[in-house]
Amino acid sequence: MLESLYRLVRDVPDFPKPGIQFKDITPILLDHRALGQAVDEIVAPFRQDGITKVVAVEARGFVLGAPAALVLNAGLVLVRKPGKLPAATRRAEYQLEYGSDALEVHVDALGAGDRALIVDDVLATGGTAAATAQLVEESGARIVGLSFLIELTDLGGRARLGPGRTVHAALTYPRRLSCARP
Amino acid sequence: MLESLYRLVRDVPDFPKPGIQFKDITPILLDHRALGQAVDEIVAPFRQDGITKVVAVEARGFVLGAPAALVLNAGLVLVRKPGKLPAATRRAEYQLEYGSDALEVHVDALGAGDRALIVDDVLATGGTAAATAQLVEESGARIVGLSFLIELTDLGGRARLGPGRTVHAALTYPRRLSCARP
Repeated sequence: MLESLYRLVRDVPDFPKPGIQFKDITPILLDHRALGQAVDEIVAPFRQDGITKVVAVEARGFVLGAPAALVLNAGLVLVRKPGKLPAATRRAEYQLEYGSDALEVHVDALGAGDRALIVDDVLATGGTAAATAQLVEESGARIVGLSFLIELTDLGGRARLGPGRTVHAALTYPRRLSCARP
Repeated sequence: MLESLYRLVRDVPDFPKPGIQFKDITPILLDHRALGQAVDEIVAPFRQDGITKVVAVEARGFVLGAPAALVLNAGLVLVRKPGKLPAATRRAEYQLEYGSDALEVHVDALGAGDRALIVDDVLATGGTAAATAQLVEESGARIVGLSFLIELTDLGGRARLGPGRTVHAALTYPRRLSCARP
């Protein structure tokens, strides 16, 4: 089943800079069956968890988070780069390789009764995911889990998110072997 | 029916700059029924038109475009700011009030057989919509229509798109009166 999604992920060498091999998910989006399957794989472990808000991270996270929210009958919360959200926001800063960046969420987007699922396309070093988790917890909501289409397992993102997190990824690189035959 | 969507659009004064009253759609997104209705309203006139690709404009367009593509059984094409798409792109520049900006699409995202629906959250002056239409037509695809959640009718966007376009907006400001009583 996942094989058809793996086949559609395109390796783009030297993007966004030399030496990086980028995992391009846009061929999945071009195929509505694959897009639907990707959304199903992202929400599958959380269908019975009473998710009230899907928290999606700008911008590719919006592509997966919006359908995920509709499938889960949950509201959609946008986490954006500074200055993009119009009303009052809270902000979390996080470190990049060189310098820092920040993410924002509307202060009234989540509250104490909410059970949140954080959705993004890729878990890499975990910087944006950790900042998003901070924003959600500062709002008083409970994080039920974090779900990604792709996890780059060698980059330490899962460890950065901490041991108490439920983290799910549909596709992993390097690829897991689901069935090892002797 | 539309009244419930109108009620959820929030006016934010002086955003992104003094004197502008911003139409904030994030309260619609927080309510999954309203988000579902917004998507339904966007695709409704185009359900029987054999749309093969929904073309969504970064970044709020992704939120509406992804569910729209799934509802229409169409692929999703991302139109992004320069430097965001990893593979080979074509580019369209457009004028802003001061200076210019550009949008890009992957060259292999659309082709001659495609019937495209362009989706974005707001039609204002029409600059990004016109640039997106240019990108779609340069790819060889046919534009069946452009659909927006909101149209700011006083800003001339519809005229900028040209007389031959099918343009749909679910909500309009100033509001249309659907029933004029004497």
